[in-house]
Amino acid sequence: MNDTLSLTEALIRLPSGTPDDAGCQALMIARLEAIGFRVERMRHGQVDNFWACRGAGSPVVCLAGHTDVVPAGPLAGWDSPPFEPTVRDGFLYGRGAADMKTSLAAFVCAIEQFVARHPDHPGTIALLITSDEEGDAVDGTVRVVDALAARGEIIDYCIVGEPTSVDRLGDTIKNGRRGSLSGTLTVKGQQGHIAYPHLAKNPIHLLAPALAELTEQVWDRGNAHFPPTSWQVSNLNAGTGAGNVIPGTAELRFNFRFSTEQTADSLKAAVHAILDRHSLDYDLVWTLSGNPFLTEPGKLTAAIGAAIRSVCNTDTELSTTGGTSDGRFIKRIARELVEFGPINATIHKLNERIALQDINLLTQVYFNTLENLLI
Amino acid sequence: MNDTLSLTEALIRLPSGTPDDAGCQALMIARLEAIGFRVERMRHGQVDNFWACRGAGSPVVCLAGHTDVVPAGPLAGWDSPPFEPTVRDGFLYGRGAADMKTSLAAFVCAIEQFVARHPDHPGTIALLITSDEEGDAVDGTVRVVDALAARGEIIDYCIVGEPTSVDRLGDTIKNGRRGSLSGTLTVKGQQGHIAYPHLAKNPIHLLAPALAELTEQVWDRGNAHFPPTSWQVSNLNAGTGAGNVIPGTAELRFNFRFSTEQTADSLKAAVHAILDRHSLDYDLVWTLSGNPFLTEPGKLTAAIGAAIRSVCNTDTELSTTGGTSDGRFIKRIARELVEFGPINATIHKLNERIALQDINLLTQVYFNTLENLLI
Ligand SMILES: [Zn+2]
Ligand SMILES: [Zn+2]
Repeated sequence: MNDTLSLTEALIRLPSGTPDDAGCQALMIARLEAIGFRVERMRHGQVDNFWACRGAGSPVVCLAGHTDVVPAGPLAGWDSPPFEPTVRDGFLYGRGAADMKTSLAAFVCAIEQFVARHPDHPGTIALLITSDEEGDAVDGTVRVVDALAARGEIIDYCIVGEPTSVDRLGDTIKNGRRGSLSGTLTVKGQQGHIAYPHLAKNPIHLLAPALAELTEQVWDRGNAHFPPTSWQVSNLNAGTGAGNVIPGTAELRFNFRFSTEQTADSLKAAVHAILDRHSLDYDLVWTLSGNPFLTEPGKLTAAIGAAIRSVCNTDTELSTTGGTSDGRFIKRIARELVEFGPINATIHKLNERIALQDINLLTQVYFNTLENLLI
Repeated sequence: MNDTLSLTEALIRLPSGTPDDAGCQALMIARLEAIGFRVERMRHGQVDNFWACRGAGSPVVCLAGHTDVVPAGPLAGWDSPPFEPTVRDGFLYGRGAADMKTSLAAFVCAIEQFVARHPDHPGTIALLITSDEEGDAVDGTVRVVDALAARGEIIDYCIVGEPTSVDRLGDTIKNGRRGSLSGTLTVKGQQGHIAYPHLAKNPIHLLAPALAELTEQVWDRGNAHFPPTSWQVSNLNAGTGAGNVIPGTAELRFNFRFSTEQTADSLKAAVHAILDRHSLDYDLVWTLSGNPFLTEPGKLTAAIGAAIRSVCNTDTELSTTGGTSDGRFIKRIARELVEFGPINATIHKLNERIALQDINLLTQVYFNTLENLLI
């Protein structure tokens, strides 16, 4: 039963970072091939990805995740080195302990146990692993999904091993995510000397009433599955640095996290309507990071919810909040998709950790979920 | 009659720049001492200043100006080198030709002519010259005025030789200037991830409605002597550069140009009232560059207006618009103060110039004004 801990430690010791897999996938692949998986490596650019299958036909149950981790940050802030897995006071410390090398190890160990017990299981067990989730996500999961879609493959049930638990392992799973739409707005004025404002057009002044309206806008009230759409400015810059010059332009960068009450097009139209009503002269460049997606409560949420209840003795809440994940790409070819993994309190932080007891519980939840879906 | 041209050329050839006088004042002082001026050099820090007097008692007529010039800018943009005075097509080209080495030369030549004709003139002719007008203005005129005020000196009539003419020499003189009050506002929020806006406080969103109100505010409608007070933002910066982070603070730099309908205190109170009504958590640091000042039409405006009419055959408009000048400091000890000098179309620009005919007309206006005030 300490298999998952050992494999997690081995993965943490491999100092991966987007897009460098550092050998993590080779370690996983060796274990998977030993139990009969057919492994397809799909390297794109500098990004290692693989797709692995065991069995045949439906249902196809896919476990998905990433071997890359975010940078360690200042080493002096760690109580033990980030790439030296260290057990201390009932926790395993190391970069990736929660996001998401423990999930990867738990996938492998749960599958090994499942295959040992059900060597001739019905359906297909699949893994979709990338080393480009924390970065641009251009050559990672999206490229694997493109390839799978091109040959008509469908996933029936997908579990992404992201750290979704909040206070207790299993208390929260994600059954969808909000969409993410960003914009870079450049408002054009006319530069001039601050003593002669009538000879200039101050883009900050031109923008101000539209900005106030955008901040006060209620885009929607959300719905049963999603919180309300939110609009936030991340950066606003105007000015030459001189105190006596009215700047020529102002640049505003913003981001929508949006519910299924909206589409990217409806949000774009609403923003343009406000800017146009204020007669602004502007450029606006849009970037759509992902549309909102949702898995309605059904067979997958029931299977994983039952597994969590029996293993962790916890009720599970469905949530669609938080940042984007590779689920947005996989959902395109997955009938049902949820995300479930460790407690996320320390992810992307110094002294990232996971409770030792959660390591085995997580393996057990994945194992039970496989049984609930396939047996 | 080409005295003024020769002296202007000599001054342009000395490549001064704030605070480096480059020998301009020594040149002026030599000419002034030769006709009986008592010269007091007042160097502060790196700034050369001097105060020079001829005669005794009242009225004290002061001619004031600066030997520093703004930087030349890209040399490739000049048709002739900025510090090589060049006559071309009826114009004298060079940095300082309009702002304000011609005025300095015209002061000296007008005084020489005046003293030659009236060796025993009544009252006092004075000059107040600095090399720190285009820069911080910390060690320049303000320090000379401090010294004069400390010993109780009063100027009855002061003419600052700044380039105030717009289309024709003499069409505009400044009989006052608006006040200038700047502020640096830091609005405090709470940094956070853009996917979790409820855990952050976006300072841009907090600021937006207050900013809209500030831009729409009518501060006053001006009065017979002043245009309305204007408020302009020069710089607005917020954001970490990352697109997924809500910033912790937003910084806004702004400037008031204000009429005598306002005081610095009334404007500060009005801004604080708006910010407080929007319940902002903020720091606001104020910098008062100068209070508004005004010389009501009287003996000085009449004397210079009559000189302009007889020399330039032009009616003169009184104005209080435009940027600050050292007049704001001198007015403290001057009963009446106006600014009058060359056409300002090319000041601070490439290929700065003055019409050759204006060089002698300017000398003649200063000469006639001295006669109108003293004889
Ligand atoms: Zn992750
Ligand atoms: Zn000047």
